[in-house]
Amino acid sequence: MPKPEILDPQGKAVLGALPRLGFTGVSSVRQGKRFELTFDEEITPEVLAQVEKMAETFLANTVIENFTVRVEQ
Amino acid sequence: MPKPEILDPQGKAVLGALPRLGFTGVSSVRQGKRFELTFDEEITPEVLAQVEKMAETFLANTVIENFTVRVEQ
Repeated sequence: MPKPEILDPQGKAVLGALPRLGFTGVSSVRQGKRFELTFDEEITPEVLAQVEKMAETFLANTVIENFTVRVEQ
Repeated sequence: MPKPEILDPQGKAVLGALPRLGFTGVSSVRQGKRFELTFDEEITPEVLAQVEKMAETFLANTVIENFTVRVEQ
């Protein structure tokens, strides 16, 4: 996701459109990217560390983006 | 996320680049979008239903994309 201090024009556009479409109560919208990686092997702490490194060096632009890694079954 | 039957060239490009960067074991990569919506009010089932409707009618292109809604504190 874009860092809080980074402008997010797409999120702002969505936020502006919501009331016109009848949706209220949303105070902020941020748009970012999501990657789903599938592994054949089991997700060990080593694999997870590798994914963190992937995200940090390659999938996310850490100058402007934060990232979180989550395991789903 | 793009539906399984939809081509995902960005995901494919990432998958192809990973071994060149020294990352192994990944069998599939899919790239999609993520929206973070902030509400001032409490997330009641009604609010959640509204968010589902937002996602279905506006945030996701349900012809080519699946979506999931998750509440985070």
